[in-house]
This record gives sequence, C-alpha cells and structure tokens, in this order.
Amino acid sequence: MFEAAKVGRKVSKSEFKAAEGELRTQLLEVQRKLRHSDIPVVVIVSGVEGAGKGSVVNRLNEWMDTRGMQTFAFWDETDEERERPRYWRFWRSLAARGEISVLFGGWYLAPIEHRFRNRCNDAELDAELNRIVDFERMLTEDGALVVKFWFHLTEKEQRSRLKALSKDERSRWKMLPSKSKFSKEYQHFERVAERVIRNTDTGISPWYLIEATNKRYRDLTVGRTLLTAIKARLESNEGFCVPPTSHAPTLPEASTARVTVLDHVDLSMTLDPAEYKPRLKALQQEINELTWDAYKKKRSCVMVFEGVDAGGKGGAIRRLTNAIDARLYRTIPVAAPTDEEKAHHYLWRFWRHIPRAGRTTIYDRSWYGRVLVERVEGFATPPEWQRAYAEINQFEEQLIEAGDIVIKFWLHISQDEQLRRFKEREQVPYKQHKITDEDWRNREKWPAYKEAVNEMIVRTSTEFAPWTLVPGNDKKYARIKVLETVCERLREELARPVTGYTLCGIRKDE
Amino acid sequence: MFEAAKVGRKVSKSEFKAAEGELRTQLLEVQRKLRHSDIPVVVIVSGVEGAGKGSVVNRLNEWMDTRGMQTFAFWDETDEERERPRYWRFWRSLAARGEISVLFGGWYLAPIEHRFRNRCNDAELDAELNRIVDFERMLTEDGALVVKFWFHLTEKEQRSRLKALSKDERSRWKMLPSKSKFSKEYQHFERVAERVIRNTDTGISPWYLIEATNKRYRDLTVGRTLLTAIKARLESNEGFCVPPTSHAPTLPEASTARVTVLDHVDLSMTLDPAEYKPRLKALQQEINELTWDAYKKKRSCVMVFEGVDAGGKGGAIRRLTNAIDARLYRTIPVAAPTDEEKAHHYLWRFWRHIPRAGRTTIYDRSWYGRVLVERVEGFATPPEWQRAYAEINQFEEQLIEAGDIVIKFWLHISQDEQLRRFKEREQVPYKQHKITDEDWRNREKWPAYKEAVNEMIVRTSTEFAPWTLVPGNDKKYARIKVLETVCERLREELARPVTGYTLCGIRKDE
Repeated sequence: MFEAAKVGRKVSKSEFKAAEGELRTQLLEVQRKLRHSDIPVVVIVSGVEGAGKGSVVNRLNEWMDTRGMQTFAFWDETDEERERPRYWRFWRSLAARGEISVLFGGWYLAPIEHRFRNRCNDAELDAELNRIVDFERMLTEDGALVVKFWFHLTEKEQRSRLKALSKDERSRWKMLPSKSKFSKEYQHFERVAERVIRNTDTGISPWYLIEATNKRYRDLTVGRTLLTAIKARLESNEGFCVPPTSHAPTLPEASTARVTVLDHVDLSMTLDPAEYKPRLKALQQEINELTWDAYKKKRSCVMVFEGVDAGGKGGAIRRLTNAIDARLYRTIPVAAPTDEEKAHHYLWRFWRHIPRAGRTTIYDRSWYGRVLVERVEGFATPPEWQRAYAEINQFEEQLIEAGDIVIKFWLHISQDEQLRRFKEREQVPYKQHKITDEDWRNREKWPAYKEAVNEMIVRTSTEFAPWTLVPGNDKKYARIKVLETVCERLREELARPVTGYTLCGIRKDE
Repeated sequence: MFEAAKVGRKVSKSEFKAAEGELRTQLLEVQRKLRHSDIPVVVIVSGVEGAGKGSVVNRLNEWMDTRGMQTFAFWDETDEERERPRYWRFWRSLAARGEISVLFGGWYLAPIEHRFRNRCNDAELDAELNRIVDFERMLTEDGALVVKFWFHLTEKEQRSRLKALSKDERSRWKMLPSKSKFSKEYQHFERVAERVIRNTDTGISPWYLIEATNKRYRDLTVGRTLLTAIKARLESNEGFCVPPTSHAPTLPEASTARVTVLDHVDLSMTLDPAEYKPRLKALQQEINELTWDAYKKKRSCVMVFEGVDAGGKGGAIRRLTNAIDARLYRTIPVAAPTDEEKAHHYLWRFWRHIPRAGRTTIYDRSWYGRVLVERVEGFATPPEWQRAYAEINQFEEQLIEAGDIVIKFWLHISQDEQLRRFKEREQVPYKQHKITDEDWRNREKWPAYKEAVNEMIVRTSTEFAPWTLVPGNDKKYARIKVLETVCERLREELARPVTGYTLCGIRKDE
C-alpha cells in the first residue's frame, strides 16, 4: 500500500512559490464559506515519526485563519481525562459547526501504539478499528467532514531524519537503535499502520497517503487536498449520502500526485540470454522441491497472473507449471463466466477453485478483472468496482489466515513493445489465434487501463499479499523474475508460521 | 433486548388454521416471482437450544416449493472443507439468484460457541462480528436478501423443553445440569447472544427476534416475516440502496407481535402507606453508604430518568438526591439545547456532564429525547432517530467499559392517572408551574409516544445498561421501587469487577 508514498514526488522552490499565494487565498475563501455552513471539520494528522507532522500543522496555521481552527495534541491524559471514559477527551476536541479541529494522531494514536508494542493481537486491534469506523460514521452522518492524513517516509529517509534529530539535546531520539533493529521496527510499524489504514478507510472518511520526503510537495499537497475536500463537502451539502465502505486509501487530489507506481517499472531490464537456460533449470528444480514441501506442510498456494495484453502471462505460466508436479496444481484460465457463475456473487467462481491443503491453483487472469476490464468497459458500475477493492482484500486475507500463500504478478510491457508483439502475432501463423479485434480495441483504451491498474496496485498490495510488478519487455528476464519471486515467496512463507486469525483471534490450527 | 421475546405472544389453533392457507398461497406466489428475479435469498435460522429450529425449517419446507429452496446444516467440517479457508463452506451454500438457502446457524454458529465457551474475549468476538457485517454487506450489495431469525425462550421454558428432550435415549441433553448451573449458563448464553445480535443487526440484514414458546405463533410469524421481507425486496429492486447501520433487532411484522413490553407494566402495584417512611429511610441510608463506597472505589454512576409527563420523575429524583452527599452528585435537567450545544453532535451535550471517577450524574431526561420527543415531534428525521439507537448503545457501552454504572428508569402511569394529575396541577397553586399547554398537546400524541417508548426499551435495554420500568400510579410505590433498584444495582456492580474492554481488548486499569 505504501508504494504510492515512495515514488519520489517533488515540488521545486519556484513551483511552490508560484502556487502558494493562490492556495492561501482559496483556503481563506473556503474557510469563510465554511463558517456560514453547519459543517464541522475534523482533520487528523498522523504518520511515521520524523515526517514533519508538526511543521505541516504550523503551515496550516500560517495559511488559514486561526480564529476558526484549533489544534489538539494528545500526549499524557490529564486527571480530568483519566477519570472519564477514554473518548471524553476526543469529544472535547470536536469542532463546532463551521469550524476546524486539527488533531495530532487523534483516536488512532493509542491503537497503533498498542499493536506496535504487541500489547494486543490483530483481532483486538480490529475490534478497536471497527469502533473508530462507527465513531467516524456517526460524526459524518451528523454532517461532519473528517479528513485523515498519513505522512510516510522510506526507511532510509526516516532513519536519516531521526539521526539528525538525535543530535538535538532535547530529542527523545538520542538513542537511535542499530540499523538492523531499526529496519525491523520500521517494517513492523509499517505493517501495523497498513492494517489500521486499510480497516478504517471507509469512503465516508478516507485516508490521504502523503509522501513526506519533499517538504514542499508535502505541504502543498496537504493544502490542496484539504481545500478540495472542504469545497466538495460544501457543494454536496444538500442530499448528503454516505457512500459504501471502500477500505483503501485515496490518492491526494493534486496534479503532482499523478506520478504512478506503474511509471516506476523499469522496462529497460534485460537478461543475458546465455544465463537464461541454466537459471531456468535451477529455479524450476527449486520450485519443484518447494511445492512438495508445501504439500507436506499442508500449505496451499494461490498464484494470480494479470498483465497487459501480450505481456507474456502465458509463457511465464508455462515455465512455472513445467516445474510443478501435475498432481499438485491446477491452472484456471478465466474467461466469460458460465450461467451458474453469473447467478452468484462475482467472487463465487473464484472461491470454487481455491485449492485443498498443500495444492496450488494458478489463476490466469482472476478476480481482479472486476477492477480492470469490468471497470474500464463499464461491465461493473462505479459503486460495484469501487467496493471490490475491500472485498478482494478481505477475500485474500481469509486465504492467508487459512495458511494459504498468495503470490500476485502484474506483467508489464511498453506500448511500443505491445505493438511489435501484436504485429508479430498477426504474421506468425501459429500465433494468429492469440490476437483478436478486441486486443486492438483494448489498446486504444490504454490510458483508462493504466489508471485502473495503478489504483488496483495501490489499493490491493497488502502486507500479506503484495503485488510483484514484472518488467516484461524482455521475455526471458520476465520469466526468470517470476520464477525467482515464486521461489523467494515460497521459501519465506514456508519457513514462517501462519499468521493472522481465522476466528475470534484463534488461528486455524489452534 | 430479549424482553421483546418474553411477553407471552400466542396464536390459537383456530387462528392458525384460518391464517395458514392464505399464507401458503402467498409464499408460493412470492417464490414464483422470486424465481424470475436476480435476487438470492439467504435465511439464517438460529436461537437458543430447544426453540424448535428444526421444526420451523420443516414447516417452511412444507409450505414452500422445495425446488427453489435448499437447507444446509453446519455440523462437523468435511475433509474438503477443513482443508480450505473457513468461509469456503458458506460460499458453497449461498443461493443462486432466484433461489433460497436456509442455513442452520450459518456463520454465527462458531463465534457464539467460542465466546460461550470462553475461548475468546469480547474484543476478539467483536472483530469476528465485524467481519460478518462486511460479508453480509457484500452479499446484500450484490443484490441478496439476508433474513436472520433468532428464536428465544424464557429460562423456565427452555429448561422444561430440554428436560423433555432428555428423556429421549438419543438426546445429547441426557445430562441436563443442575438448576442453578443451568440458570447461570442460560444467562451467560443470553449475554453472548445479545452482543452478537446487537453488533450484527445492520439494517441491511436485520435480525428478527421471535418468541418461540408458542409453536403456532412462532411458525406463523416466521412465515409472515419471510413473506414480507421477500415482497419488500422484490418491490425495492430498482434503485436498491443500503440503509445506514442500525444495530438493533427488528420486531417481526405480524399483527400478533403488537403486544408490547409497555403493556406488561403492572400499574396496579401499590405500597402500604405505613411502610413508606421506614423503608424510605433505610434505603436512603444504604444509598448514602453505597455512593461513598463508589467514591472510594472510583466508580462513577450515571442515572437516567425518563417517563410519561407527570409520571413522578421529579419526586423520585428528590428522594434519591436527599440520600447522596451533595459533593458527590450533580443533577442535569435537560431542556432545550444552548447555541453551543446545537453546534455539536446531539450527544456532545451529554458527554460534557459525564461524572469524574467516583461521582454521580443524574440526568432528568436525557439523550433518549432523540428517540422520544424528537422522533414524535419530527425534530429529528427518521434516519437520524433510527441510527440513534446504535449510537446510544455504543455511548453507554463506553461508559460501562470505563467502569461507570448506568441505571435507567422509565416511570410509567396510566392515561387516567395522568389526567387526574394534570387537573390537580391546574388547581393547586404551587403546582401550576408544572403544567403547560404543551403537556396537554403531548397527551394527545400518546399512541405515537407509546410506540416510541416501546421501541426505545427493546432496542436499548442491553445486558450492560438495562431499563427498569417503574409502575408509577402509586407515587410511594414508585419512589421505593426506584431507590430499591438503585441500591441493588450499586451493590451488585460495586461487588463485581469492571467488565468489557476500553481499547484493543485491554481494560482501563490494566
């Protein structure tokens, strides 16, 4: 999920200067309108340590009229607060209609801290997160606008910032842990944060993930996102309707946020042809052993192949299945649904083929069709594909909890390479069946597909089922990359105990 | 909550005969229409042991066309099922569009059993229940109709039924526990069931609570409720919109369900006037000691007084406050909100006055105004007061979790008694300020108020904050009843450790 906050977005000094004045004017203007409305605004500012949450809030205070905006930090509880129910302090900090409250961390602070320190398990965290969802829904239904920012840094960037901070006498970062320990903690924190964001991103009060490395980008994006959110809320005031749950973070509404994860796939990657054969053999041998090991350990494996048309899915799948004993796997090519499948929920046809313990199912295209082809071609309505992200995440989480290993590939090629392959297919007789008019039509819709793919990756790359983006211009490179990833993931997952819970905090084997 | 399923509803043999034919015809008719729709129907049949779930399903099979209806029980998992994610078996049992699946227990079976056997805590149960809500929302958004029945029996009735069953050689009830142990288990099961129903009653897939003592009433109500639900769903097919969460069980749509909790308040109760003074003194003395004890133990107390106009709230509150040290309590008379209060969520004005540790706040009228006067007078819109039940339950649960003791009274009098008191107020000079034109207007709206009060009691009488209905025609009786209840509850609660969790399964004092 945090891939989207690690693509290196930047705003230059001159760009910032040019934009700042206009943004300030608009923020003040919208704040004036807000004052005469009956909308209370709650802004939650959270994220990793060192991301500059304090500076962001100072910036907002500089830009906006502080008479209508109050800031609240939640450090130690006062006596007054300790002696009352936990949420009493939050009720005290809620904005009145027409005003803005900015809360550092807010009700997210304690649950994140508790889970990070292993004081509770995932089920207990989930229960708390669901209470938060209920609370925010209550505020929203009462007319409030809740805007939540999460500021993120790469591990390297965070470490270097905390190191700088540690030189300050008054800093609590004076004792920065060793590099390996720091790395472990960073990853653990990221896992907790991802779960928190995923389970509390509800459409009615979405999270905005903000890359905090470049301060100008960070501040400008916060300002613009807040502006857009308040404006939209003021306009939708009549007939306000709470949309369905979506459970996935929203990309900030700013032109500079348009750089996508997909733009970062390095399509120039190639493999020395001489290396191909020996590496292929070695990897296939290892996969064979690993899948037998999975069989013995009763761990199932679900592999998903998605990608650009002519991206090389078929070839990669064949190299993979060559490695696995035929009794251990099934390949499910996903085409149009049958009548019976159509008579059920769209996930039903995929649930049918979930493997038994120790087996592998390879899906050649998958449930992601809902948010790709069905979205772009209009076969699914916007509410349908929008809620599919959460449905898919929950589906995959259930697989993980049952001990299944989920490996997902997106095979990517450039448009030029696609054109070359299409033409080749038309000319080579035994490849002609692989190219249809539909492929040419889809090609024209590339911008729409690109947007859909990007959103899919951001919203469904989870800590338990990450996407692997495979640069596919060089077929040999792509196949080796797929097999390597399968090896790595199987090796890692088989060595690790099953995590997550299947029921009431209880694991399947308990 | 289960009060509504213990009022002794009955259907006579002749009534049943007269209704059955027509109901069957209508059920078959609606099933025919359903077949041509794209709506899958899922019926969940659950409830206490011995309530006759099997007989109900047999009856439905007798009444309806079994070609479009399948029944699934979820006893032991098969090999096939055990080797796949837990929900795989449920996906297998989901009806296709146009058909009906009847599931015994369904996805509710395991969480109830786990919590009942103390294999998990409340937070872990809540996490599971929230997954269920997500799952059912997903089905509903896909067009499904989910109808959930809970069959309930009084403790006495259940024991006598299980005793009868225990005479059967093949019965697993042969070893019925001793009476006191049975009673404990009954109460424990009821507490778990209440939590499960409360947290999964979502408006989109509501629970129907059915009194199962009288078999004819039970079966007829199930048939009628199912008929009404399918009919309504067929009609609303276009522009189907998921309503907001409501979290409270729905009363079945059947004329025989109209007997209300309020009808069971025995207004003929009186107190021998000679007993009044000595009992009053003794109770006041005890309350004084108990509130000091609460102070020492840092347990707060929130008392709510609601009731019919001229029902005797003021008098009862005065007898109560006379007993408590003035430093320990505050009375909050609830009138029209201030400007500042109006600028916040309606619960904000009540949160303000939540007592510090060890103190008591007495609310003379309360947040329940939202579902009483605001509902009846139209000051709150239907979505507003409908979602207030869940908001109120969640609010009170937070108080309980912080260790607060919540005691709620409804003071009830007959309409004749009210008339007598109104007239008295008009004539006695020092009582004239207590009667206004509004009181007379409210009196005319009695049927609407009665419906609102009844729904309020059914939906907000929880295991942690039950309502006490006080028969108020005899003022002395009512006052003693109030003081007795306060004594009992304080004594009980102060002897008991704080239950529930405040954050991620962790109690406040941990």
